Amino acid sequence: MSLSTEKSSALHHGGRLRAAAKRYAIAPEHWLDLSTGINPNGWPVPTVPSSNWARLPEDDDGLEQAACAYYGARQVLPVAGSQAAIQELPQLRSLCRVSVLNPSYAEHAAAWRRAGHAVMPVPAARLHEAAGQSDVLVLANPNNPSGTRFPMDQLLDWHAQLAARGGWLVVDEAFMDVTPKSSLCSHAGPPGLIVLRSLGKFFGLAGARVGFVCAQEELLTQLRNRLGPWNVNGPARWVAGAALADRDWQETTRQRLVKESARLHNLLARHGLKPDGGCALFRWLRTPRAAELHDAFARQGILTRLFSEPASLRFGLPGNEADWVRLGAALAGLTSMTAFEAVP
Amino acid sequence: MSLSTEKSSALHHGGRLRAAAKRYAIAPEHWLDLSTGINPNGWPVPTVPSSNWARLPEDDDGLEQAACAYYGARQVLPVAGSQAAIQELPQLRSLCRVSVLNPSYAEHAAAWRRAGHAVMPVPAARLHEAAGQSDVLVLANPNNPSGTRFPMDQLLDWHAQLAARGGWLVVDEAFMDVTPKSSLCSHAGPPGLIVLRSLGKFFGLAGARVGFVCAQEELLTQLRNRLGPWNVNGPARWVAGAALADRDWQETTRQRLVKESARLHNLLARHGLKPDGGCALFRWLRTPRAAELHDAFARQGILTRLFSEPASLRFGLPGNEADWVRLGAALAGLTSMTAFEAVP
Repeated sequence: MSLSTEKSSALHHGGRLRAAAKRYAIAPEHWLDLSTGINPNGWPVPTVPSSNWARLPEDDDGLEQAACAYYGARQVLPVAGSQAAIQELPQLRSLCRVSVLNPSYAEHAAAWRRAGHAVMPVPAARLHEAAGQSDVLVLANPNNPSGTRFPMDQLLDWHAQLAARGGWLVVDEAFMDVTPKSSLCSHAGPPGLIVLRSLGKFFGLAGARVGFVCAQEELLTQLRNRLGPWNVNGPARWVAGAALADRDWQETTRQRLVKESARLHNLLARHGLKPDGGCALFRWLRTPRAAELHDAFARQGILTRLFSEPASLRFGLPGNEADWVRLGAALAGLTSMTAFEAVP
Repeated sequence: MSLSTEKSSALHHGGRLRAAAKRYAIAPEHWLDLSTGINPNGWPVPTVPSSNWARLPEDDDGLEQAACAYYGARQVLPVAGSQAAIQELPQLRSLCRVSVLNPSYAEHAAAWRRAGHAVMPVPAARLHEAAGQSDVLVLANPNNPSGTRFPMDQLLDWHAQLAARGGWLVVDEAFMDVTPKSSLCSHAGPPGLIVLRSLGKFFGLAGARVGFVCAQEELLTQLRNRLGPWNVNGPARWVAGAALADRDWQETTRQRLVKESARLHNLLARHGLKPDGGCALFRWLRTPRAAELHDAFARQGILTRLFSEPASLRFGLPGNEADWVRLGAALAGLTSMTAFEAVP
């Protein structure tokens, strides 16, 4: 999804690889897709016991307890991906002033705007001011695509300011799993602090559509009533419960991602594309040449994520040694290409 | 879910077996659960390819085409179970007069009422009158739990009446799969005819939360926008596509269910419990003794579905020979029990 437009989400998210395949006449299976921030080596899903397909999902299957333990939260609401919560939260407030970190994941601003709220995009440096002047403040921590991290004290101060006048701080922690100590989940409980988590990125389970909301019990009840029963299906509940409980995989994966994101940083830097930010699952490069670079990678079948405001590229992690070699070769080719060097 | 109350769906649907297990002090795994209308021998789900867990679901994966072919529909919208559509449809109209077949699946009336519409419960015999006086008419065909079927000409006439003044006919075909020629799906396209289908019952995939809405394209677009992207998850889309395309399994299963529902009818009738209705997936028995019978079965670890208005019991199909024998023995025991015979 681009940062500057707010078209249908499905168009932006789902169609990107297929659109590139068509535009560059390279079959989808021949692409190295670095355009997502999804862990390319996600939790290995075993065969799901058939009863999870056959029977209606039940609330007391242990999923909420597994999530509370993993997130360190007192209570959670499982939702069909954090997108489900992003869409519903704006329905729970009467029209108000909403400040949304920008650039950031564009679905937040889009959802609040669609619901009729007055939405103000706010750069990171002016969030403090916005916290004093808004009813709702929405940000991602770490931010996407910049990777900016906000100190916990700062966030709790903003929450206190907002909550004192009935406001909300909404923190999207989709990329927090590698740095769990920085999470606000364990602080969610008092009114006005809403933390969103997702199994899409770190666990690599974007297709499962499982996320969690950590917030005050009353708000979770409102949200649950709006979403209706069975909003996460049976197999996804089973998989999520097992992934959240798999501490060995989590620890190994945290260590692996830290190493691989450093490797990605170094590889890009070595070829003159030193990233300006990122987190364990992606690196972000601000450059006026973003569009040309995106095109040059795409001509070699490597899909990166192009943002227009600000002009920037996001690189996800290659999933195996062959893909690392392919990215390295493309980078070497790019920097040696006369045509590329000639780009103003 | 009882016909006479409209509490939280999750409570009614999910908690029934566990509540019975507690009340009768019989562990959940020892029950023969005949309380659902779900095919106990559903489509056999193979291991889902891991990419469906890892990648965001995409709209152009062939699911909609498979559904159009199976339902004979021009266009469909996949939804996270027909429940998702049941909840959203009332949001798409300004407040109006809604007639809902009663008794029937109680979620319909509950959803329209929650959204603030004026809901009138209407017995089957007065639907014709209701079609002339309502803005929306909602029914299930075949009906649940009565099994009542409505002739296609009748339904199309009602639709014409309603559509002429901007009204809707909503037909829930959750139990239609064994009798596809009676489906209205191929007629859905003009304004005001909305048909709901589900993979929960015939395909036995209640945990997957996959349903389809067949209706005018404009209405599907409205509904799609309200539900947001990825409302059916990746693995469920893959499983649904494969199940809808498996014509051999479907044909074998239709034949099997017709035989087994006849067997259930005969077994109940032989023990003095001649059903008053039903369809290929359940039998329905009206009797003032419904509560006592429900209790007598439950004391033997057999869970039936009790309805209070009208007092009635619904029996799903046993899934294997051992379960048939168990039900037969329970029926024999019941009719010979002095205590039972003595019930006034």
